[in-house]
Amino acid sequence: MAVRINAMAVTFVAHALAVIAAIMVLVWSISYRGGLAWEATNKNLIFNLHPVLMLIGFIILGGEAIISYKSLPLEKPVKKLIHLILHAIALALGIFGICAAFKNHNESHIPNLYSLHSWIGIGVISLYGFQWVYSFIVFFFPGGSTNLKSGLLPWHAMLGLFVYILAVGNAALGFLEKLTFLENGGLDKYGSEAFLINFTAIITILFGAFVVLTASAESPSPSPSVSNDDSVDFSYSAI
Amino acid sequence: MAVRINAMAVTFVAHALAVIAAIMVLVWSISYRGGLAWEATNKNLIFNLHPVLMLIGFIILGGEAIISYKSLPLEKPVKKLIHLILHAIALALGIFGICAAFKNHNESHIPNLYSLHSWIGIGVISLYGFQWVYSFIVFFFPGGSTNLKSGLLPWHAMLGLFVYILAVGNAALGFLEKLTFLENGGLDKYGSEAFLINFTAIITILFGAFVVLTASAESPSPSPSVSNDDSVDFSYSAI
Repeated sequence: MAVRINAMAVTFVAHALAVIAAIMVLVWSISYRGGLAWEATNKNLIFNLHPVLMLIGFIILGGEAIISYKSLPLEKPVKKLIHLILHAIALALGIFGICAAFKNHNESHIPNLYSLHSWIGIGVISLYGFQWVYSFIVFFFPGGSTNLKSGLLPWHAMLGLFVYILAVGNAALGFLEKLTFLENGGLDKYGSEAFLINFTAIITILFGAFVVLTASAESPSPSPSVSNDDSVDFSYSAI
Repeated sequence: MAVRINAMAVTFVAHALAVIAAIMVLVWSISYRGGLAWEATNKNLIFNLHPVLMLIGFIILGGEAIISYKSLPLEKPVKKLIHLILHAIALALGIFGICAAFKNHNESHIPNLYSLHSWIGIGVISLYGFQWVYSFIVFFFPGGSTNLKSGLLPWHAMLGLFVYILAVGNAALGFLEKLTFLENGGLDKYGSEAFLINFTAIITILFGAFVVLTASAESPSPSPSVSNDDSVDFSYSAI
């Protein structure tokens, strides 16, 4: 009972939200928070890598990877490769982003892993890695049997969306946690930076919603199936 | 491409998680935070109504309403009535819970509606109300045409799950925000209360995940269609 809309059209909304969210997090971390650096005496510059890498690297690239099957007018094997590579880049940038948070904490003598945001973050990146590895083995190389692939695909899609929704939710947790710290430090609760952070979180949630809507919507037209190796059409049409 | 599992079995996991989450939020608000009260000189007792009503009233009852079609071995018209009534109770308790938060803020001279949690909360309760009203009109009384019902059902289910996922995510935001305030006030970041709050949030997220999984899973056996008024089988099998 998937909703019937033109998935390709929905992906344009998702792309637009992604660009807006990326600009907002860069404006926040550079114009308001002083910029980005891996090595710095001002440890906040190290922290600033975290929201930028998690949002642009993990959430946005991960979302684009999920909708790649429906956003790209290409042959399925090509889309499959893009799906796999984009997720790999998202995973790598996500890990890098988490390392930046640990580096900031350690060099600022802030305790680690006490908040709900950090617990869910470790859970999400682990599940994302697990999802990437078994999917590579089953759907890419060495590749499982056709039965295994078709039986596993709904679970691949369901777990993928579950982990992605968790990631988007956790981004919202991260924005709220950071803003709560800043406001406890005196930042104006109704000031421009507070509004920028809240709206960045809302745009991120909307981006995530359109990614999930795209994945759940009827695909306009399944890609033409190709050589026998990929005779079964794995372009998921709807969850 | 819905996952094929026995939805009824999944609902038992959801029910168990609901009971655990309810116990945890009551232990937190009563044993740790001093109890619940609508009128009190200790304004924290008024605040404590908020997490209890939102989790037990809104999230849990709302989740049970969503899975009622698959968790109850009853005729469809009866399940439809339970679905509608449970959602109405969840909406009412949610509004009551939000009023408790405003009452606490006003009587404690805390500013309102500056946090991401409050913005999303107002959005969620508004969308939930909108969803309930149009659904009552179309699916219950006076009732839309069969075409309208069948055309609208996928959107009803999709919007319903979107609002519900937002509600669960917002509950996690609320737990994290409150814990961040408490820790800024000196609460031990690795103490039992901090762990209780974090795990209550995680159990709530798991409950939400099993509600969505139930709604997305194949229903074991569609209820027998009944009199001509309800000849079309609206027991959603899968999203």
